[in-house]
Amino acid sequence: MTKHHEFRIKVYEVIFGTDTPAGRLFDIVLIYAILLSVAAVILDSVEAISKEYKLSFQTIEWFFTSLFTIEYIIRLYCCPKPWRYARSFYGLVDLLSVLPSYFALFITQANFLIIIRLFRVLRIFRILKLMRYLGEANTLMRSIILSRRKIFVFLISVMVLVTIFGSMMYLIEGPANGFTSIPKSIYWSIVTITTVGYGDITPQTILGQALSSLIMITGYAIIAVPTGIITAELAVELRREKVIHGCHNCGRAGHDRDALHCKFCGAKLITHT
Amino acid sequence: MTKHHEFRIKVYEVIFGTDTPAGRLFDIVLIYAILLSVAAVILDSVEAISKEYKLSFQTIEWFFTSLFTIEYIIRLYCCPKPWRYARSFYGLVDLLSVLPSYFALFITQANFLIIIRLFRVLRIFRILKLMRYLGEANTLMRSIILSRRKIFVFLISVMVLVTIFGSMMYLIEGPANGFTSIPKSIYWSIVTITTVGYGDITPQTILGQALSSLIMITGYAIIAVPTGIITAELAVELRREKVIHGCHNCGRAGHDRDALHCKFCGAKLITHT
Amino acid sequence: MTKHHEFRIKVYEVIFGTDTPAGRLFDIVLIYAILLSVAAVILDSVEAISKEYKLSFQTIEWFFTSLFTIEYIIRLYCCPKPWRYARSFYGLVDLLSVLPSYFALFITQANFLIIIRLFRVLRIFRILKLMRYLGEANTLMRSIILSRRKIFVFLISVMVLVTIFGSMMYLIEGPANGFTSIPKSIYWSIVTITTVGYGDITPQTILGQALSSLIMITGYAIIAVPTGIITAELAVELRREKVIHGCHNCGRAGHDRDALHCKFCGAKLITHT
Amino acid sequence: MTKHHEFRIKVYEVIFGTDTPAGRLFDIVLIYAILLSVAAVILDSVEAISKEYKLSFQTIEWFFTSLFTIEYIIRLYCCPKPWRYARSFYGLVDLLSVLPSYFALFITQANFLIIIRLFRVLRIFRILKLMRYLGEANTLMRSIILSRRKIFVFLISVMVLVTIFGSMMYLIEGPANGFTSIPKSIYWSIVTITTVGYGDITPQTILGQALSSLIMITGYAIIAVPTGIITAELAVELRREKVIHGCHNCGRAGHDRDALHCKFCGAKLITHT
Repeated sequence: MTKHHEFRIKVYEVIFGTDTPAGRLFDIVLIYAILLSVAAVILDSVEAISKEYKLSFQTIEWFFTSLFTIEYIIRLYCCPKPWRYARSFYGLVDLLSVLPSYFALFITQANFLIIIRLFRVLRIFRILKLMRYLGEANTLMRSIILSRRKIFVFLISVMVLVTIFGSMMYLIEGPANGFTSIPKSIYWSIVTITTVGYGDITPQTILGQALSSLIMITGYAIIAVPTGIITAELAVELRREKVIHGCHNCGRAGHDRDALHCKFCGAKLITHT
Repeated sequence: MTKHHEFRIKVYEVIFGTDTPAGRLFDIVLIYAILLSVAAVILDSVEAISKEYKLSFQTIEWFFTSLFTIEYIIRLYCCPKPWRYARSFYGLVDLLSVLPSYFALFITQANFLIIIRLFRVLRIFRILKLMRYLGEANTLMRSIILSRRKIFVFLISVMVLVTIFGSMMYLIEGPANGFTSIPKSIYWSIVTITTVGYGDITPQTILGQALSSLIMITGYAIIAVPTGIITAELAVELRREKVIHGCHNCGRAGHDRDALHCKFCGAKLITHT
Repeated sequence: MTKHHEFRIKVYEVIFGTDTPAGRLFDIVLIYAILLSVAAVILDSVEAISKEYKLSFQTIEWFFTSLFTIEYIIRLYCCPKPWRYARSFYGLVDLLSVLPSYFALFITQANFLIIIRLFRVLRIFRILKLMRYLGEANTLMRSIILSRRKIFVFLISVMVLVTIFGSMMYLIEGPANGFTSIPKSIYWSIVTITTVGYGDITPQTILGQALSSLIMITGYAIIAVPTGIITAELAVELRREKVIHGCHNCGRAGHDRDALHCKFCGAKLITHT
Repeated sequence: MTKHHEFRIKVYEVIFGTDTPAGRLFDIVLIYAILLSVAAVILDSVEAISKEYKLSFQTIEWFFTSLFTIEYIIRLYCCPKPWRYARSFYGLVDLLSVLPSYFALFITQANFLIIIRLFRVLRIFRILKLMRYLGEANTLMRSIILSRRKIFVFLISVMVLVTIFGSMMYLIEGPANGFTSIPKSIYWSIVTITTVGYGDITPQTILGQALSSLIMITGYAIIAVPTGIITAELAVELRREKVIHGCHNCGRAGHDRDALHCKFCGAKLITHT
């Protein structure tokens, strides 16, 4: 019983952990398996390739589905709280990686199953954990989370703006010039304000071109706002990254990484990286 | 009389306030009503949908118009200074939300009334007040207002630039390649310098393509300027958000929010949020 | 003689200065004259309008040419060093604003004269002097000048990049898909890397689309560099604008440029620019 | 023997160094030679020009090839460690500048040799060394290197995003609307999220246009992230550049503006603003 328990802990360390050599190897193999299976699904959608190698793709798909199914079962087996894992974000992604292939046995011609299968690409984010990029990802995420309220305010303003601009263009240009409805005009507004500019719908009248110019310059000016928000937050985060240890004499922080003495009281700093 | 006065104050609190549960509920209901009525106007412009459900859309429109009319009258009634409210920005938007529908009874085929009706989308900004996002909106607005002079100088420079670039392209490419007039060439310049790039007008001659390349790289380089302006101001604003109170002993400011002691003299900080 | 001298100084103050009411009025009138004359040249290029009002445009053009000629002569007359003014940037722009119209008397069908005439739009920058936006313009200019070496390095790198990307695309796609020569491929590279994306030339082969994706993501990533350069410089400039001199009584800095008293202790500030 | 050694050192100083007048002159001549030879290769690809001046281009090419061959041999000769130079980045670029022309003698119709020849444009980066822009280039490079992990995390996220968005669009729009395969849909996703927007493939269905709008706004919002990363790093770098005065005791610089004591040796700093 204890031996069985020990075995489970060891398996857990290999599959969920990244500190042991076996754990790292497992993660690396897993990442290649994910990338290959995703590449197979993507290539299978190219008609010329799909026709030629139909059988190969089916074999590959079933090989990876079996692999990921076994992996999922082992994860459930070795996890101390299997139910919590199953309901977690990665637990659901892991399940979604294998389910569509089984469904495809019963439901034929279900194109959308291919897409759900592709969600397994999300598992790649585990690579970050492995490669110790978690710190960087955290800094980025924290900046975005800290500025989420500002970004939300910004997005609502953009939404209101494109609704008004879109409906004005619908009035000015009209269905004759491709602005067939307000939703389509709003779509055009978004294409324009984000500076994507497909050119599938373009203003034809003088007034429409003048208003478009205004929209473009508006978009050009307000593209600065999200950048400003994230940059300002990131700058604060970066400074915090650099300010780690306080002085042992006066307790004050804010020293550079290469500082040897406290810049406030002159006492020697004790570094503990 | 006093009872009536009390009632008016209570109604005022519900309609204009956001602190009471009733006030919050009213705001939430209002926001859904605005979103639904805007969605109805937008969908009504899609011919396929409009034809099928003509009657429904008219019913919905009149339902919301009645609702917003009643709301407008109640706002006027309970406001201590009704005239000041009526002339305020939101007062005018509230009025514009209902007037077009009444005008439409007399003026038929007035497309532009639809658009005025859509201005009610501006009322959504009230959502910000409700959701306590006002602080974030203020920080954004203050940054934009503080940098308005720099942005004005920037916009004038862009205007002068597109006029010169546009007229040069008109000279180089000429009407044969789509650059039929200087206004159209300026429109093209704006499309190019903002990196929108519809592709409805493109340079065909070698010289025109060379000048275009120059314009694009110019646009690429100067897109940095508004971003730089807003970011720099936002960074200052963010720091101000963080640096509130000065030390009571030495008077120096610049402390972090979580600081307990002055980082200059070590005295205890007295926090007064 | 002295009276004449006094008159010249007075005229100088009105025409070159912005401090007297007459000087301000002159500047405002001048700006409207410039805007109107530029608008006339621009509208004259629209064939439909030009045909209808041919005579009016000629009258307007000669009215403004006379006006600007008189202004130029007066500037030369009242300037203490007329030759230095004539050779200055604005002196040349002033001259170029009137010369083309006189040349047009002798040279007919000279389209390029229209364009030179449009260079008078550059005179609008005088508006900035008038509106006291010079400080803002200076901050912007100083940031750009301070970062000109970094931007130069950046531009050379972009040039090298588009040359290599362009020639690779020429090899991959070839003349059959619109990439008819290396210069055209480089033009396409610039259109792509600056995210303009006209769509007049697009990659058709799988390999070409893969390389394009790489170019786009490169462009997306390096658009950050000029923004970063200008923002970082602007942030330093902004701080400098705000932090100039410390108070001589309490020693604390952080005063605005227009502050007369220390905002901490109220002592009079001694300015030493 | 010693004389020969002295001669080699002198040649080395001229060819590799930039401090002597002869060294500067050599670099300037070299840069013009590179630019001219690159321009010749580029122009040779334009059919109209190529046909007319076929012989001239061959002469120019062989002139520069000889020149660069001689230069390469001299570099090998005067370099104290020729093998290390030959294997260095610039050594390889120098070799690649001449080899293709010799190969072209044996292999005819080898288009890709032209492209390799164009890699000599990379030698232009030597201009930076000459023009003392190395410091600026280093600041830029250091910022990019310091933020490489954040940019890597960002790029992986973008990759995952475009895979998911692309496959969803493939499902929604399908081959009938140009989304013929998942790789092509991913290509479209990249074109859209980077705001390039060629318009060669555009969504036609309502649902596709709605999802596209979402992708565009996502792209618009996340364009802020790399900018933020680089800006924040650059700001830190710039501040380090600006903190000038060193400690009077130990001479080391890098102190903050509000520092009172040297952070290296603890001595009191003497501030002289």
